[in-house]
Parts: sequence; structure tokens; C-alpha cells
Amino acid sequence: MKKLNTSPISGMQELLPREQAIFNNYKETIREVYRHHGFLEIETPTIDRAEILFAKAGGETEKQIYKVVKTEESADDADQALRFDHTVPLARYVAEHESDLAFPFRVTQIGRNFRGERAQKGRFREFYQADIDIIGRNELSIKYDVEVIVTLAEALERILPAEPLKIRISNRKLLTGFLEERNLQEVSKEIFSIIDHAEKVPEEKTIECLSELGIGDERVRELVDFMRISGTAEELGESLGNLSSRSELFEQGREELMQVLRMLECMGKLNVMADMKIVRGLDYYTGTVFETNLENYPQIGSVCSGGRYENLAELYTDQILPGVGGSIGLTRLFYILRANNLIPEADSKNPIDIAIIPVSEDEESYCFGLADAYREIGQSVDIILSGKKMGDKMKHAAKIANKAIIIGSDEISSAHHMIKNLQTGELAESHVLPISQA
Amino acid sequence: MKKLNTSPISGMQELLPREQAIFNNYKETIREVYRHHGFLEIETPTIDRAEILFAKAGGETEKQIYKVVKTEESADDADQALRFDHTVPLARYVAEHESDLAFPFRVTQIGRNFRGERAQKGRFREFYQADIDIIGRNELSIKYDVEVIVTLAEALERILPAEPLKIRISNRKLLTGFLEERNLQEVSKEIFSIIDHAEKVPEEKTIECLSELGIGDERVRELVDFMRISGTAEELGESLGNLSSRSELFEQGREELMQVLRMLECMGKLNVMADMKIVRGLDYYTGTVFETNLENYPQIGSVCSGGRYENLAELYTDQILPGVGGSIGLTRLFYILRANNLIPEADSKNPIDIAIIPVSEDEESYCFGLADAYREIGQSVDIILSGKKMGDKMKHAAKIANKAIIIGSDEISSAHHMIKNLQTGELAESHVLPISQA
Repeated sequence: MKKLNTSPISGMQELLPREQAIFNNYKETIREVYRHHGFLEIETPTIDRAEILFAKAGGETEKQIYKVVKTEESADDADQALRFDHTVPLARYVAEHESDLAFPFRVTQIGRNFRGERAQKGRFREFYQADIDIIGRNELSIKYDVEVIVTLAEALERILPAEPLKIRISNRKLLTGFLEERNLQEVSKEIFSIIDHAEKVPEEKTIECLSELGIGDERVRELVDFMRISGTAEELGESLGNLSSRSELFEQGREELMQVLRMLECMGKLNVMADMKIVRGLDYYTGTVFETNLENYPQIGSVCSGGRYENLAELYTDQILPGVGGSIGLTRLFYILRANNLIPEADSKNPIDIAIIPVSEDEESYCFGLADAYREIGQSVDIILSGKKMGDKMKHAAKIANKAIIIGSDEISSAHHMIKNLQTGELAESHVLPISQA
Repeated sequence: MKKLNTSPISGMQELLPREQAIFNNYKETIREVYRHHGFLEIETPTIDRAEILFAKAGGETEKQIYKVVKTEESADDADQALRFDHTVPLARYVAEHESDLAFPFRVTQIGRNFRGERAQKGRFREFYQADIDIIGRNELSIKYDVEVIVTLAEALERILPAEPLKIRISNRKLLTGFLEERNLQEVSKEIFSIIDHAEKVPEEKTIECLSELGIGDERVRELVDFMRISGTAEELGESLGNLSSRSELFEQGREELMQVLRMLECMGKLNVMADMKIVRGLDYYTGTVFETNLENYPQIGSVCSGGRYENLAELYTDQILPGVGGSIGLTRLFYILRANNLIPEADSKNPIDIAIIPVSEDEESYCFGLADAYREIGQSVDIILSGKKMGDKMKHAAKIANKAIIIGSDEISSAHHMIKNLQTGELAESHVLPISQA
């Protein structure tokens, strides 16, 4: 019989158990940091109304949405598709459950999203995102922008304790106001996109792209000067002051950005700076925007980004719901860490703590009791039952576990056993454990 | 502007944060028990090859599979659909990664599956299943059937410590051999299905259905007698002995079932019994089968079931891979527990440990430091920033948190604060905490 192709569909992450354990540890670590910062976890359905998903998907994304075919038995349903991010279902969720939620609503979603984009190395069609958002009703203090940035940074620091982060922040009101004042609104989408890509191309290329918009050399020069602005709150105050903009929006953006920067600088914990090249391209942000790089690996690009939006759910409710949020693209991050050998050594252990190996069938029932005793103190334990040679059992143990315990008749009569570290080969005295069953 | 419909698609679970927290705790508890028993976690893609999913979906299920439409940019892909269980993708996974796995392979998958079945109360089109499986190469000791049953029962006991479980076990070789011996193989599918439904209808109805198969009154009587067999290992030995079957398959089934029962009885931890009405209808099991009920709520039906299959992946590999597994249908279980008010009181607390409330803006920065201190000792903390009246802040706190701390100037100058239990109203002395930032 012809056998079926067993490889996963392209663009899907499929890990071996050992890698999966590392991935899951990272996911749990992020979840824990979010939870400690008061974010409430929710889960929206993977499948949602096509109407809702397509209403909010701009440009490129619309082409990447997977539609789902209703089955015979679910033909009564609305047209449906797979969610492509967490924000669109969140907007529906908040509008649906508004009266049951407490605002500002700190919310987190950690789950899989789907985008059927062109197959490329390091891009996934099914991928985990770990989002946090804080949603206000009518208003939301700028302090929450700081909360979001601090929480995301802490999550990354817990995963990558040895990698210094670099957080760059801007405010979209600055560039928007700057362009309004110069009557460049008509090409603002193009300009946002060009600046968004500026770091991936030589500066001449960026200048060329801006020139092609036909806005005149003077404006191109001004934009390039603007783009180059970066630094601390103090440096920013000076640089932006020099621009002498009279746009109200620009002034608002400047004030907000200075506030966010100053608060973060005061805390003194994070490496933050303003950078006008951060604009978050085609996203729906309207205020604060930020990106996070690994300082030693700038070529990797941003590993965590987000920003503020002025109204989350205007398609569903008349209530004004401003929010700020951000996301760690976990599947992509994990791929990058592996590809660059950045997974800390300490994380690369086996998924199981202890393998217990009975020498023969006679010791099996003792081993069941011993396993329970170790489980009660929080250890994960596999028992490698008889039927194999001892050498095979040890190989099996070394593949899945960090420690091994061999139980023969001597170990049972003395009620003592040795614990072998499978990485170093070291032997340690047994813990003396209550054996509930012998 | 007309607003969009914000309800989730029918058949999708969407929970408020408080309920989600309980659900997630149950999920994490199950995951922890599985992990302690040495099961390695893997994740297969939500989207898989249609070829693979449809090859293994029998009868009803085939009509319930959601096909996914490829996008413009992913048109190069194979035809695809959403997984409807964990076992089919597991078979593909094990065949694909066989050389990298250690056998017996203890594996767990906890995630969402999809079935577009007719909308009914308490049935979900997107639902969590928490599976464990142990896969052998060429052979797999019957002891692993016991391991699976014990692990699943422990997971359920951890979730529902006050609900006694009732585990009923059979072996499909018994009925299969019984039917073979009587030349009833042609209607064996129908008979399995009738017995599977026997507990949901009056016995006369079952007899009527069996009679309609035209197998004669004698056979119907024998089958009803068979179906009624249940009890301990000892009782079973006697009842089955009386049946005087000379089928080899039947004898094998009897021996396996006796072994499984005796091992479980020896452990003395679980309420187990044999029951010939347990046949798992149209499933692919070939040996041990089991179901688990809440003893006090038999009308709920089975909350956890599984069994042994003789070859996991014959569609993909020539290697013989026998396995045994089982699953907790978490979304359905959670729905049932809520509908029957069976969620333990202790689980129904708020998702956040502490809400810190600054009296005014002046205390906010102290509160940030205090929040960090509590986070460092593992507490989840929200800070309810200024901008609302104290009464509103307290209402907000009571909605999301279990305890509240109010910080005014006195609390800062004395470096002490009270902790209010939001359920009981009780006040407790503050912990004395290192405040890293004031």
C-alpha cells in the first residue's frame, strides 16, 4: 500500500518533545509574568465570523486570511474564517461582554493565529502570539503605555536573562502632525511605510523612495532629518524643539512621548530611547509605538512590538474604548533563537526529571511506589518497564530524562538507591523517601 | 453606522476572565499530572493535510471535518482541514519523527480540536481535549494500559477532589471473539453500536434493536446476558467462565482484562470494575476500553475514556506501533460542571491576587514599587491608577481581585499597610516587604 506523506504542511511549526518542552517553558514564563502584572487571561475562538475578520484586515492581511468551509451539519452558521491576530477577536469580545468587564481591562491572550502568507524561511502560517492589552472606557491614562512596555520587557528578560534588550519608542502623532502641517496627508500611508522599512535598506534607497513621491527635495530633507532623531527624553526635547512645529497633534505626540520616556527613565530598569524611525507601518496605532530588539542581534529585527490605539471596537459599539497593547511573536522568536543558537544552555535539558528503571519484572511494583513518591514532591517520572536490555533502557532514559534510578533487589532490601545525573554521569545518594507501596 | 454582530459563532466556548481562570487552572492541573507521570508534551498543527484527516475519519466524523480554503499566497500547499482529534495527527507525527523518538513513547497533547457537528446544548464545535498515549514499537506491555488509566484518574481526582469516580473497563476482544464464534461478524458494527447506546435507553429498546438484526432470539438472549456482565476481577472470572467460549480472541481478551483489573485492584486506589456494556462504539480500539463516570452523577455520561489500538500509523509506515491512550474532553467537562454547579467553591475565586489602590496620584510611584515586591513573591497584582473615585476603584478591585491594599500618605510614611480580603471583608496586617522603589 502506498504510504501517505507525513510531513506537516509548510509553514507549520512541529517540534520534537525536547524542543517542545523548551518552547512551552517560554510560553509559561511569559504567561506568569503577564499574570503577575494583573493581566486577565481570556481565550477567543480560533474560528470567528468572516464578516468581523475581513472588516478589520487591511491590505496584505486580507489576502492571508484562511476561510473555513462550513460542514453539512453546521451549515446554519455564519460565514467563518481563522483569526489572524488577537486584536480583532478581542474587540468583538470586549464589545460583547462590556457590561461584565472592569475597566481599565487588563487582558492577555496567548494562542495560535493563522496567516496564509507566502512560504518563507522563518515565517509561519500558524504561529503563537502572546498579547497583552489594557482597554479603557472613554479614557486611558498614558501611564498604562508604560505598564505594557514594562510587562513585555520583563517577560523577554525572564526568557533571555543574558540578552540585553533595546526598546525604541515613538508616537505616531508626531509624524502624522508633521505631515499634516506640510499638507502631505495624501501620501502619509506611503511615507509611514517607507520609514517603517528604512532600517532594512541603505539610506539612499529611503531618500530615493521618498523622492519618488514627488513631494520636493525640501520635504524629503525634512523627513530624513526627522527620521534621524533619536535619544533620551532630554535629547528628544531638544531635537523636536528644533523642528518648531506648530501642529497641535505634533505637540500632543511630543508631550506623550516625553512622559512615557521620562517615566521609563525614572524606573531605571530598562534600556529605552526615542527613535523616530519606529512608526509601525500599516498598523492601526494612533499614539505610542514601540519595538524591542536584542541589543547584540539587531539584524534579527524586532522581537516584541505594540502601541496605543484610540478606539478598539468602533465597528461593534458606540462606546469609545481606547487601548494600548503589545505582543511577543513566540513562534517566530523561538525559531530565531534556535537558528542563532541563543537558547540558554540551562534551558536545553530533557523534559522529564527522573527515569526509574527496574532491573527485572520483580522490581516493577516497588518502582511504581517509588515513582509516586517522587511525583508527590513535584518531579516528573517515567518508569521504563521490563522487556528491554539494560543498555537499551539506559539509552531510552538518556533521551528523555535528566536523571536515572536503577532499582534491583539490593535497592529494595536496603531501601536506598543512587541517582545518576545523565548529563554528567555523576552519582548521588538517594533521597530517603516514603515508599507508599512496596 | 450599523454595528456588527459580536456574539461568537455557535458551538464556540467563550468565557469571562473569572471562568477562564478556573478553566485554565483545570487545564494546568491536568498538564501537571500528565507531566509527573512522564508524558512528553507535543503540539501538532491545527491545520493538517486533508488527505490524512479524511483517511482516518469514519462515518459521522467525516461529515464534521472543517476544510480550510488556501489563500492566494499559500496556493502551493496541499489541501487542508482542521484536526478533529489528537490521534490522527499523532499518528502522522510518530511516523514522521520515529527515528528521533524513544519507545515506548509517552506523549500528551492538550489543545483544541474541531468538529462541525449539529448545534446542540453542551456540544462544542471547537473544544479542548487533553490526551495521553503510550506508543510501543512492535509490542507494548499490558501494564501500560494500567498506567494510562491511573494517570487519567489522578488528573480527574485533582480537579474534582470531592467527586468519587467510577471507572468501568472491558476489552473489545471479548465481544469481537464472542461474535466471531457465533458467525455474527457481518452485523458486528451494528451490535457494537447498539451495546454502546444500551445505557441511554430502556433494556426493551436494546432487545428490540438486536432482534431487528434478524440474528434469532437465542443470540439476542446471549448478547443481553453478555452485556449484563460486570463486577470485580473475581466476579468477572466466574461470569465469563460460565460463557464457555472457545474463541481464541475471546480468551485473549479475558486474560488481558483480568490482568488489567487485578493490577488496578492491587493498587487499591481506584474504584474500578469490569462492565461488558463498555465497548466504545465506532472507535478504533482493539483491546482494553474504559470509561469514567462521576459516581454521583451517572446521567452526565463518561467524562474520560480511552483504550488500546493495535497499530497507530499503518497508513504512514510499515512499522507496527501498538498504543494505548485516553482523553479528557475538557471543554465539555467544564460545561457540565458549571451546568450542574459542580465547580468546587474554592476554585471560584477571582483571577488576580491583589489589587493595589493609590489614594491619589502622589502615591502611585510607591504603589509601583509595592506591586513589584508582591510580584517577586509570586503574587499577581493589578494597580488601579487614579482618575476614578475610591468607591469605583474598590468595585473594580472586587471584580478582579481577592485582596485589596489601599495606599495613602500614612501607609507610605509608616511603611505599613492593611490587606483587605474582598470576599470576607476581613483586614489583616501587612506583610513587611522590601520596597525597591518609593
